[in-house]
Amino acid sequence: MTAATRGAGTNQEGVRRHNLGTLLRHVHDTGELSRAELTGRMGLNRSTIAALVSELDTLGLIEHSSPATSRRGAGRPSAGVRIREDGPYVVAVDLGVDNAVVARVGLGGKIWHRAAAPIPEDPEAWMVGATIATLVRQVVALSPADAPLLGIGLAVPGLVRRSDGLIRHAPNLNWHDVSFGSIVLAALALDVPIALGNDADLGALAEHRRGAAVAVDDLVYLSGNVGVGAGVITSGHRLEGVAGYAGEVGHLYHDPRGLPCHCGSRGCWETVVGAPAIAEALRCSPDQVPRLGEILDEMTTAPRELRSIATDLGRGLGAVVNIFNPSLVILGGYFLPLFRLCRAEVTAGLGDRALMPARDSVRLTLPGLGNDSVLLGAAEMAMEPVFTDPVASLGSAITDAPARLAG
Amino acid sequence: MTAATRGAGTNQEGVRRHNLGTLLRHVHDTGELSRAELTGRMGLNRSTIAALVSELDTLGLIEHSSPATSRRGAGRPSAGVRIREDGPYVVAVDLGVDNAVVARVGLGGKIWHRAAAPIPEDPEAWMVGATIATLVRQVVALSPADAPLLGIGLAVPGLVRRSDGLIRHAPNLNWHDVSFGSIVLAALALDVPIALGNDADLGALAEHRRGAAVAVDDLVYLSGNVGVGAGVITSGHRLEGVAGYAGEVGHLYHDPRGLPCHCGSRGCWETVVGAPAIAEALRCSPDQVPRLGEILDEMTTAPRELRSIATDLGRGLGAVVNIFNPSLVILGGYFLPLFRLCRAEVTAGLGDRALMPARDSVRLTLPGLGNDSVLLGAAEMAMEPVFTDPVASLGSAITDAPARLAG
Ligand SMILES: [Zn+2]
Ligand SMILES: [Zn+2]
Repeated sequence: MTAATRGAGTNQEGVRRHNLGTLLRHVHDTGELSRAELTGRMGLNRSTIAALVSELDTLGLIEHSSPATSRRGAGRPSAGVRIREDGPYVVAVDLGVDNAVVARVGLGGKIWHRAAAPIPEDPEAWMVGATIATLVRQVVALSPADAPLLGIGLAVPGLVRRSDGLIRHAPNLNWHDVSFGSIVLAALALDVPIALGNDADLGALAEHRRGAAVAVDDLVYLSGNVGVGAGVITSGHRLEGVAGYAGEVGHLYHDPRGLPCHCGSRGCWETVVGAPAIAEALRCSPDQVPRLGEILDEMTTAPRELRSIATDLGRGLGAVVNIFNPSLVILGGYFLPLFRLCRAEVTAGLGDRALMPARDSVRLTLPGLGNDSVLLGAAEMAMEPVFTDPVASLGSAITDAPARLAG
Repeated sequence: MTAATRGAGTNQEGVRRHNLGTLLRHVHDTGELSRAELTGRMGLNRSTIAALVSELDTLGLIEHSSPATSRRGAGRPSAGVRIREDGPYVVAVDLGVDNAVVARVGLGGKIWHRAAAPIPEDPEAWMVGATIATLVRQVVALSPADAPLLGIGLAVPGLVRRSDGLIRHAPNLNWHDVSFGSIVLAALALDVPIALGNDADLGALAEHRRGAAVAVDDLVYLSGNVGVGAGVITSGHRLEGVAGYAGEVGHLYHDPRGLPCHCGSRGCWETVVGAPAIAEALRCSPDQVPRLGEILDEMTTAPRELRSIATDLGRGLGAVVNIFNPSLVILGGYFLPLFRLCRAEVTAGLGDRALMPARDSVRLTLPGLGNDSVLLGAAEMAMEPVFTDPVASLGSAITDAPARLAG
């Protein structure tokens, strides 16, 4: 074989793996598809689709479903494919300031098991790593013994460097330059791909893929927790910035004479609408902040102080809308119950600050994935490699994770 | 001829026109290129390049230059091509709040002639249209008699709807929903392509193509005039938003107890750092605002009040940097001389508000195109069609513009 034909062979192999990944992503996004639908979506002929389906079946990624009527309503029924439920999975971690949630998530986006634990104030990274490792062990222990663990995706409330996943700054955890991925892997004594991302960015990703913003090209996912951040998709592209730090809207000026902020400045928007301010408005003690979601969920009417915060939420959103001109803003985290309680105040605040043409283009909405947007975004991030090259991704997966993590 | 082969023929013609436009864009971006360089950049063989060059020559768009040594330093000298100086041109308009500048701009970005006139306060659109028409006549009168006028590009200090160029809102002109393109064409009694865009967006476009930000993928061009706006390029894509209104950073909260703003709100960043605030700091009367650029240009040291504005400019930039995480911020308009005078204050203000990782990634700089970024961006916008399909663009050009506009 000459160098030229070997090169061509490698290219063909690359194209085949790319097609395998793309087909798998279609099934992952949609749940179940007929071969006819796959032929239409991928623009490949029936025999190529059949070969790809057969290989993904052999790889243990998808399985055949009983012949289903094509959703197009035309032609004869064609056998369908769906994600194999005992197949590969990822572990997703939503690291909040107050607590961490860990879940085992299958291809297709199904959350199989979840576990959570509180995070103490000003935590040391290795302690949080140990907590997360315990939760990972819990959810992995419940997985099929030989299902491949593809990797771990970890959502962080802070600035994550895109090039290597370093946490540059997580102000509300008081972390600077923490290699948290390495810390978690060390605590697990496991060598598996791990990816880190900003929580709001991952919320936007999940809502765009399978939540309230499917087929929406200009959206903002606003995460409201102790800090406030935005994940932005603009003209269909993720807003990242040069190093991955874009979207830090929580530190917009809201009142220069306001409260000091963890970032070192004063009067940032998140000091006015973040969880501590909401807790104070509800006369909760600071140790009740982690229960804030439940407390808000149980309320049927909002006290005046909460309505005032909702107005400030809307005003800050006015700035966000002026900057990004999205067609959809999704209110996540504690903003979900806050918006449900105080929709009129949020909308009025938005009207105070948004320029009319931008305001006229936007709709505010709740997350399609409820409280799981960020968690599922972390899962989507961890799954990316299997949609790029399933063969390589399975090659770096761990096939005896329950046994290894039990030992 | 069957439908299928006719389809293929049309596709081939489409590919050829696309290649013609791409080659023309390379010459436009670079000034002069050898055929060897074109072969390398376009990934096409020598004979295809020769055919494309020959057709662009026939169309009157480029001309041959004397054999130049390849800039790669390798191979033998190869004959070059450059933009034909008496060839097609566009008319660019930079419509400011105080004045309008109109220029005749050739392919290659050369400004041949320019003319300017003041704009009165709260102007009616048809009066401004008449003023601009007069300026257009002046610059077109000086063009070669049969050089094709490809179109007009118009930069506006306001929100321009991408779909049709309608000015939705220009707060400092007090315009709402103005079809200004039609008004200008009516005043000219001319039917030629006209495109409108936001001034800051066009400043970013020009600086990205031939100014301080060539090959920079994450940049913000900040336009400082009566209003303040940002043109943003992120991961190489223009930030537009769903309707084209993105980048309105001038209405970020700066001080909720501040001055009323044209937008209807209060304490917007532009009320603190816009031209009226600068004029007041310099104890200029309001009617001197149009001369502000010259006044600032002539200063060698900044009074205390100006330094205070520079600090607020930097603080607002901190928010811009937190939101977009650019590697470069270009300070245009009145911010050009202000930054030259008060670099330390702007930088210190940025440090007050920008999160450290984002601040560490960014550099502040002056426009590579001086005061012409927006004007040249309007020209680039008007030229877009000729780089997509030169044949079609020349087909809608006007070849006797001086005679028609004189009559
Ligand atoms: Zn802050
Ligand atoms: Zn304003």
